[in-house]
Amino acid sequence: MLRVHDKESGSVYKMSLDKFFNPQSIAIIGATENELNITSAIFNNLFEMGYKGTIVPVNPHYEKVFGLKCCPSILDYEDNIDLSIITISSEHIPEILSQHIERKINNVVIISGGFAETGKRGIVLEAEIKKICRENNIRIIGPNCLGVLNNYSNFSTFFLPWSKIKRPSRGHLSILSQSGSYAASMLDMLYLEGIGVSKFVSYGNRVDVGESELIEYLTGDDSTRVIGIYMESVDDGRRFIRASRLCSCYKHIVVLKVGRQESGINAARSHTGAIAGRYEIYKAAFRKSGVLEVYNLEEFLDACKVLLMQKPARGNKILVITNGGGFGVAVSDMCSDTGLNLAQTPPGIREYLSEHFPEFFIFNNPIDLTGSAGDKDFGIALKTAFVDNDFYDAAIIIPLMPPPAMTEGVVDVISERAKESGKPVVVCTIKSVYTKKTKEKFESKNIPVFMSPERAVKAMNVLVERGKMDGC
Amino acid sequence: MLRVHDKESGSVYKMSLDKFFNPQSIAIIGATENELNITSAIFNNLFEMGYKGTIVPVNPHYEKVFGLKCCPSILDYEDNIDLSIITISSEHIPEILSQHIERKINNVVIISGGFAETGKRGIVLEAEIKKICRENNIRIIGPNCLGVLNNYSNFSTFFLPWSKIKRPSRGHLSILSQSGSYAASMLDMLYLEGIGVSKFVSYGNRVDVGESELIEYLTGDDSTRVIGIYMESVDDGRRFIRASRLCSCYKHIVVLKVGRQESGINAARSHTGAIAGRYEIYKAAFRKSGVLEVYNLEEFLDACKVLLMQKPARGNKILVITNGGGFGVAVSDMCSDTGLNLAQTPPGIREYLSEHFPEFFIFNNPIDLTGSAGDKDFGIALKTAFVDNDFYDAAIIIPLMPPPAMTEGVVDVISERAKESGKPVVVCTIKSVYTKKTKEKFESKNIPVFMSPERAVKAMNVLVERGKMDGC
Repeated sequence: MLRVHDKESGSVYKMSLDKFFNPQSIAIIGATENELNITSAIFNNLFEMGYKGTIVPVNPHYEKVFGLKCCPSILDYEDNIDLSIITISSEHIPEILSQHIERKINNVVIISGGFAETGKRGIVLEAEIKKICRENNIRIIGPNCLGVLNNYSNFSTFFLPWSKIKRPSRGHLSILSQSGSYAASMLDMLYLEGIGVSKFVSYGNRVDVGESELIEYLTGDDSTRVIGIYMESVDDGRRFIRASRLCSCYKHIVVLKVGRQESGINAARSHTGAIAGRYEIYKAAFRKSGVLEVYNLEEFLDACKVLLMQKPARGNKILVITNGGGFGVAVSDMCSDTGLNLAQTPPGIREYLSEHFPEFFIFNNPIDLTGSAGDKDFGIALKTAFVDNDFYDAAIIIPLMPPPAMTEGVVDVISERAKESGKPVVVCTIKSVYTKKTKEKFESKNIPVFMSPERAVKAMNVLVERGKMDGC
Repeated sequence: MLRVHDKESGSVYKMSLDKFFNPQSIAIIGATENELNITSAIFNNLFEMGYKGTIVPVNPHYEKVFGLKCCPSILDYEDNIDLSIITISSEHIPEILSQHIERKINNVVIISGGFAETGKRGIVLEAEIKKICRENNIRIIGPNCLGVLNNYSNFSTFFLPWSKIKRPSRGHLSILSQSGSYAASMLDMLYLEGIGVSKFVSYGNRVDVGESELIEYLTGDDSTRVIGIYMESVDDGRRFIRASRLCSCYKHIVVLKVGRQESGINAARSHTGAIAGRYEIYKAAFRKSGVLEVYNLEEFLDACKVLLMQKPARGNKILVITNGGGFGVAVSDMCSDTGLNLAQTPPGIREYLSEHFPEFFIFNNPIDLTGSAGDKDFGIALKTAFVDNDFYDAAIIIPLMPPPAMTEGVVDVISERAKESGKPVVVCTIKSVYTKKTKEKFESKNIPVFMSPERAVKAMNVLVERGKMDGC
């Protein structure tokens, strides 16, 4: 675990949050095999993931649940419980929590909704929960959430069946999400994109544990390299800035802030009871603390992906090499839109290329190798303009696969040249059935592939913006 | 064929362009079975599509090509040829064209590059081709292009093997594209999205036939309901406005204009020799002529899709119904960003809903049925707030499938209510392996599904913007 020196926040949180991610023993309150009840999905997910800890079902109506001995109440179980998962109706939760106090169970995930998001009565109930937790040193994730997933301890409290929502493989991205539906959506998209995940937390109404403390925790988590946050509101602005600023010296943080506009703010209040506050303040805080802001789910995943695979760019001079002129034009437009500098190829490079290539290739930036080009031509262009010459800071390569002379060999050619250059490279290609394989090959070599000019340029811009922020 | 009265442009074009789309007999100049030569892919594509016309290979080196009798030159073939496809090296094309004059072949697709896009020599060659074509009444599509595809006559000049690029099914979208690589990309994306295509033209350097004349042609094409245009530049501004204005009385036109920024304009010049001109002029022209502008490939396809499946909205009051609060918040934000009005539910509707639903459902707009909702709840909410009440002009419905009570039955519930309402509806859902089937079911009932809040809102905005334009 990375040693983090943060005098102000201390390091107690590490101990108290660790049981959420690596519990040795868990209780599931209201456990049942009934398929319509969400606990059955939680059990099945744990079984499927191969969770190795002790699972204690709690329910007065059953003797066994999924073959495990069931306790009538948590008070009847005598061994240690690291973490309790509560899914029962909200009005019964204060009583259940008092049993947890008695049993000295200090970590609780409350999945159930029916709190501040539903109006007056829920607000009162939520305040009561909050008070209980503060006064008795109980740590809570939730309510109104999916809870926790840790791919490194094969543990999750998620109730979405893995048959309906795919689970991403093990990797180095951790996600924090106020919204459960966004969390679900992200899981599936990460799976489809082949992006691996370390921790995943959906914390809903956030009566206790929120993004700032989770960022502190993940700062010390070796298996997390990028943190992605879906945010409706922030729990503690100063702590968030402090935590992010420290974290972003070691890792990358990407945030998707919703509730930016008035109607979104209202919807957020109805959704997780969040008071979103003025958006401008958030923007300033993100800038201050090394947090990259993105504006929709696709950008969010693309930013996380590019930061997992490539390093930030040292400047904004971008080289574009393509064999499809139309894509070159679109990338040029988009680069201008986002402030990337598509500087013309310097004379030295241009002369060399015109000696080595047919005259109908185009040696401006974008370098257009046309539909006649093959794998090797990409290698020559990259070597000349990017490896042997330090004029450009980063490159967007667009190897369209349909022309006859293009083969999958282009993956090795491009990724080797990229490595030699020591500079960031992203690949843009056509979204197609055929190119899926090429994409996977590129990404196995840590060259990120984006299926449209827009996405490739935005991803490159993430590397440039992150490069500007570096140093802490 | 729709009868179109356009005094200014006349209707001669219909006859002269029709041979590009419905040729009874074609010649392929430079025909060979050599896999590395693009003619072999053209042959294979025609065979695979089941083209029923006569195919005449032309090449002095072979007696047969793919089992078809090969002529040494086009002069040696005595029967009628409707259309000739030329793929040979650019410098030989003027000579070949003179043979076409002799044989009275008036329609030619020139696939070959090596013209204005490559610099001085190419510009001279292109001017020569243009002169030949004008003086001898030869109509040309190209050069430097993919040419034509007509799904209704099983004909195409495309040299991208259908094994590498998938071909969309038969449908009612026609595409015009200056760029070949964009055209290729679109084909595959349309296939993946399940959007059916009527005609598809990639016209490259456009020495003769361009978008204006093609719009005129498609205005009279019964199987075309939406026209999508990828544009670097326009051939004849006044003709374009006139043609689009007439066409958009009957059909929808969507345009993706690239070469908006200076670097893009330069790249477009290198690419197809296009002089893109000032972007503001284009914007004004689009507004004038009922053309919807979009800004990237994804928006382009989404706009075409939504216009194929739903009718324009009569106003901008949008109802949102969801069972995933986070998606509701994101949609709210995006609606504000794009100027859609997420008006609060009027008291009458709210009261009715609160009597019929649990109190933790949320009856603002977005109506949030929460993770507890099932298929029928969507039906009740839609009936009350959208079918029986005329307050809202259109609806974005977000049925997330993971919660246990949600089944595929929701497709029938939503599509029946949508039909009853007579107002446009789009569906937003999670991009996932599981929801793919749900999406296909919705779209088989003409309810378009978008895999992110952003895309759903933008698609809805297309219907609202198109609604403002209506009437000609």
